[in-house]
Amino acid sequence: MQFEAGELLSKINDPSDLKKLKEDQLEQLSQELRQFIIDQVSVNGGHFAASLGVVELTVALHYVMNTPYDQLIWDVGHQAYGHKILTGRRDIFHTNRIENGISGFPNRFESKYDAFGVGHSSTSISAALGMAVASQIKGEKDRQHIAVIGDGALTGGMAFEALNHAGISKSNLLVILNDNCMSIDPNVGALKEYLTSITTSKRYNRFRDDIAAVLTKISEVGPNALGIAKKLEKSIKGTLLKNANLFESLNFRYFGPVDGHDVKKLAKTLEDLKHIPGPKLLHAVTIKGKGFALAEKDQTKWHAPGLFDKITGEIKKSSSDKPVAPKFQDVFGHTLVELAEENDKIVGITPAMPSGSSMNIMMKAMPERAFDVGIAEQHAVTFSAGLATQGLLPFCNIYSSFMQRAYDQVIHDVALQNLNVVFCLDRAGVVGADGATHHGAYDIAFMRCVPNMTVSAPMNEEELRNLMYTAQLPNKGPFVIRYPRGNGVMPDWRRPFTEIEIGKGRLITDGEELAILSFGAIGNEAVKAVQQLNELGIHPAHYDLRFAKPLDEVLLHQVFKKFDKIITVEDGSLQGGIGSAVLEFMADHGYHSQVVRLGIPDKIIEHAEQNAQWKNAHYDAHAIIAEAKKLCNGKLTSSMVG
Amino acid sequence: MQFEAGELLSKINDPSDLKKLKEDQLEQLSQELRQFIIDQVSVNGGHFAASLGVVELTVALHYVMNTPYDQLIWDVGHQAYGHKILTGRRDIFHTNRIENGISGFPNRFESKYDAFGVGHSSTSISAALGMAVASQIKGEKDRQHIAVIGDGALTGGMAFEALNHAGISKSNLLVILNDNCMSIDPNVGALKEYLTSITTSKRYNRFRDDIAAVLTKISEVGPNALGIAKKLEKSIKGTLLKNANLFESLNFRYFGPVDGHDVKKLAKTLEDLKHIPGPKLLHAVTIKGKGFALAEKDQTKWHAPGLFDKITGEIKKSSSDKPVAPKFQDVFGHTLVELAEENDKIVGITPAMPSGSSMNIMMKAMPERAFDVGIAEQHAVTFSAGLATQGLLPFCNIYSSFMQRAYDQVIHDVALQNLNVVFCLDRAGVVGADGATHHGAYDIAFMRCVPNMTVSAPMNEEELRNLMYTAQLPNKGPFVIRYPRGNGVMPDWRRPFTEIEIGKGRLITDGEELAILSFGAIGNEAVKAVQQLNELGIHPAHYDLRFAKPLDEVLLHQVFKKFDKIITVEDGSLQGGIGSAVLEFMADHGYHSQVVRLGIPDKIIEHAEQNAQWKNAHYDAHAIIAEAKKLCNGKLTSSMVG
Repeated sequence: MQFEAGELLSKINDPSDLKKLKEDQLEQLSQELRQFIIDQVSVNGGHFAASLGVVELTVALHYVMNTPYDQLIWDVGHQAYGHKILTGRRDIFHTNRIENGISGFPNRFESKYDAFGVGHSSTSISAALGMAVASQIKGEKDRQHIAVIGDGALTGGMAFEALNHAGISKSNLLVILNDNCMSIDPNVGALKEYLTSITTSKRYNRFRDDIAAVLTKISEVGPNALGIAKKLEKSIKGTLLKNANLFESLNFRYFGPVDGHDVKKLAKTLEDLKHIPGPKLLHAVTIKGKGFALAEKDQTKWHAPGLFDKITGEIKKSSSDKPVAPKFQDVFGHTLVELAEENDKIVGITPAMPSGSSMNIMMKAMPERAFDVGIAEQHAVTFSAGLATQGLLPFCNIYSSFMQRAYDQVIHDVALQNLNVVFCLDRAGVVGADGATHHGAYDIAFMRCVPNMTVSAPMNEEELRNLMYTAQLPNKGPFVIRYPRGNGVMPDWRRPFTEIEIGKGRLITDGEELAILSFGAIGNEAVKAVQQLNELGIHPAHYDLRFAKPLDEVLLHQVFKKFDKIITVEDGSLQGGIGSAVLEFMADHGYHSQVVRLGIPDKIIEHAEQNAQWKNAHYDAHAIIAEAKKLCNGKLTSSMVG
Repeated sequence: MQFEAGELLSKINDPSDLKKLKEDQLEQLSQELRQFIIDQVSVNGGHFAASLGVVELTVALHYVMNTPYDQLIWDVGHQAYGHKILTGRRDIFHTNRIENGISGFPNRFESKYDAFGVGHSSTSISAALGMAVASQIKGEKDRQHIAVIGDGALTGGMAFEALNHAGISKSNLLVILNDNCMSIDPNVGALKEYLTSITTSKRYNRFRDDIAAVLTKISEVGPNALGIAKKLEKSIKGTLLKNANLFESLNFRYFGPVDGHDVKKLAKTLEDLKHIPGPKLLHAVTIKGKGFALAEKDQTKWHAPGLFDKITGEIKKSSSDKPVAPKFQDVFGHTLVELAEENDKIVGITPAMPSGSSMNIMMKAMPERAFDVGIAEQHAVTFSAGLATQGLLPFCNIYSSFMQRAYDQVIHDVALQNLNVVFCLDRAGVVGADGATHHGAYDIAFMRCVPNMTVSAPMNEEELRNLMYTAQLPNKGPFVIRYPRGNGVMPDWRRPFTEIEIGKGRLITDGEELAILSFGAIGNEAVKAVQQLNELGIHPAHYDLRFAKPLDEVLLHQVFKKFDKIITVEDGSLQGGIGSAVLEFMADHGYHSQVVRLGIPDKIIEHAEQNAQWKNAHYDAHAIIAEAKKLCNGKLTSSMVG
């Protein structure tokens, strides 16, 4: 499906076309770009409000900067739709996030305008500083290096690490703080309050006016503005010191706050900043969802709303009639409150994902016991460890892929001290449209090697509830529960709690000929496979291992004694995953069965629908069936040979 | 060996004894404590300068605070010797860092006074905040929660994440900034410069005096000081705003700077701060190595100097006469410069470990191409990624155990983009006296599952050089080289470079009966084992796999075709390590050999000498011999049975 672009936008095939426009046309272009995003996302889905908020910034940046020579990095990347549309991807933008289409995030393999792949938060300043320092080394004096980072992403510690390093470099780095007071949920923390105080303080507004006046002078002089810039430097130094703020403390020159929706003024300011050397920060105030009234009003809901009617704003629901099984996320959220009502030691922690993880349910029900700590996974884990030392029982919910950012804290602060912290790893396994940056592919491997750790995965909603129930019983130690993005399989999921014995798997279907060992919700593909194999006259046994660590050794001894053909299935990396754990068991106990491991292979899995990813990566029901048939044919053949 | 404590120190068996002293005696006690540390470390080794720098702070804290009820966390922990000595461990302090002795770091399992295990940097504020919030929830209003953090550790991003969260909490948290301008090496970054500007600025000194005056008033009133404290709050708010600084930006109340060696004044200030609610920061200026002149002069050398003469300061050298093989660290440092002289794309990056990693050799030789980015592993990796996008070739040297802190950046910013970044993982494997927090145990498992990654380990110095040479050739992609702490085996290591084919192992000794597959320098234990086994009439083949990823499949096919008994040896976790990789190969290709995997088992490895750790964990030469004998007896037995 093609979309009609407006009069100006339809002529912009790359930023060189944009540069031909007059300043007075930038506003119209911004409106057309905004409308184009609304048209597309309402029909095709994707991230929404973030890109609307930076339309003017996007237009101004590509108007003023010499991209791709000048390097532009969009932190987190879900605000880069306008950037993609202006840089040669207008006519393929309708393929956004679908299989074989363009990525929902900037991607170096997709376009030379995407200077750096982004998907996780808070990386942009480090990457841009690397590029800026490379330019210094190579003597590229005129090259601009720009990181656009939200106030939410700025709470991530690595952004601060980068500011600390950049502040002593002489590199030509421009950080644009896109201040909209939001992460996916409202941004939290002292920094946010500080930024609000800046934007509302008279002193800073006066300062802003002073700067604006001087910059106007510079721009009147034209391009040969170096001398003036030096005067500027000297003349505002006093002001800077008097107005010392957080960024100036870190040796950045601070400019702003400016209105992030005034495209002409933005363009002017950016032009001026090009001539000011060293690390500098432009504070732009924007409104997430700008230009779509409902999105401005409920920014969390409209972060990625799914499909909607662009006129009425009505969000379209799934058309299926049958009772839909809930999202694992909602089961988590409601179950946590249920448990916390009974167990007053339970506290909840989320690093900036209240709505995505459904931790917002507990935050609403028990605000004093549930904490959004900002985009700060490292802190989230060690904060949880601190809580646990005092006898509280933290449920720390972090997406599997973001848990990669707190790995050391899991080892050093929780596991080594054997503290009772429950890690709920949401979005474990492949995640669908968000693609390569967001898969929770590695957690089985990277958690399984950590001493004291229990690593579990529920096959369905009831299992998730029971694992959560079990994890909050006394002295269970560090306890991982990984579950996937999306819906489960049990419409009637609200069942009474049962304790699960740690390290105990369960038999799903008894059988002959071969055994299928699954881990987690992907086991439902094994259920489908078994049904179809039965119709073919093959009757595998199916076990839900439930724990990658500790393994159910009793169960495995039974399996290896009975079966010489085994298939393992997991929604995780094959290198070091649960299939490897089964092989380790086999080797350690002297068994010699034939083991076929299905799971995420050793390559990058691109965006597509989740079940297409399972299929492409060869671990869905079809793959299980195919491998089972091969194994059984093999058996027949070898029997015949024998 | 017992050490004599001074007159006062000898009577202090726990902090309750300390509290019996008069304020006037604190200075003498500090001197005795300092001397006791000097006496011990000079003879037994360990960390030195950091603990000397906080002697007065340690005495003052335990004098004023009600430890262990009040919770005291020492960031990084190597400055906690004084703390250990004052809290019941004076008479066992001579067992510091040795097998079955006390840990070199605070450890919850060792003492109730060690509120949180620390070893890695920048965790203390998160942990203390967790404790403080737990106290809020439990209604413990009088409980103090104190994080002592160095200015170096403060550059770690998670410290900032914690400040950002703490700033909006109402928790009773005191952060003491131990500002000595040092990490192990001199601290770097904008924050350091900022702190220096505070400590030297007249405005801040005036401010300090104002605060001191008000605080004096409070202390004169005595314990019932709440009303005064509120007045104080109001009266200094204006001052605070006028003097707004970085910490105040984050909603902390800032006090200081104070002289960290004036024990009486410290005690007074801490007493006052107990009565001021909410998050607050005390800025104490200290001198690392205080009281030992040579250490004050060369703080990096004296961070952990080994054994020395406490009178002359002469550092004792190893008494061995034979030519000593170099440290892997020095081979790295010199080789990097050699390569960088030929290849102008090479740049070096270290997160605050110039001397520990020997990156200081390149920093001295090519200051414009080697970067100490501060304690900031996440930034170090993504900064490297940014450099790599511009065609530079970063050698990013991070201790294996600290690389856990940048895991997401390795995946998201380097591997997914297939950038040419060389990760030199120093201190891979067990590390000896530093113990559990510092082992590089998991990197094989957590790196091997990442797509695009090459994972290698040199068996000796020549191999390290050749792997480094190979990694810097064009388009090798993300490339891990892991090597252990300590000395190699080749006194004559400076040999010409040879390219190593990626994923190629090598035969060390041909043999019969069984094959030993080793990975990395632990292979030298296999060499010893083979020699001794030969004397017993057993002749194993020994292969150095050299790459955990990609595996040498040609070699492995040969091995599995020839041998049905295989031992793998690695200085890394058995869960998901290279032994598991070999099992994956075996399963994927339908082999059924008997594989015994030796390496770090699934438990915490405590401090001891490195080779004792290998022995205790059963993967040294003796273990290999034992397992080889078992396998061969098994063969004989089964042949006889057959």
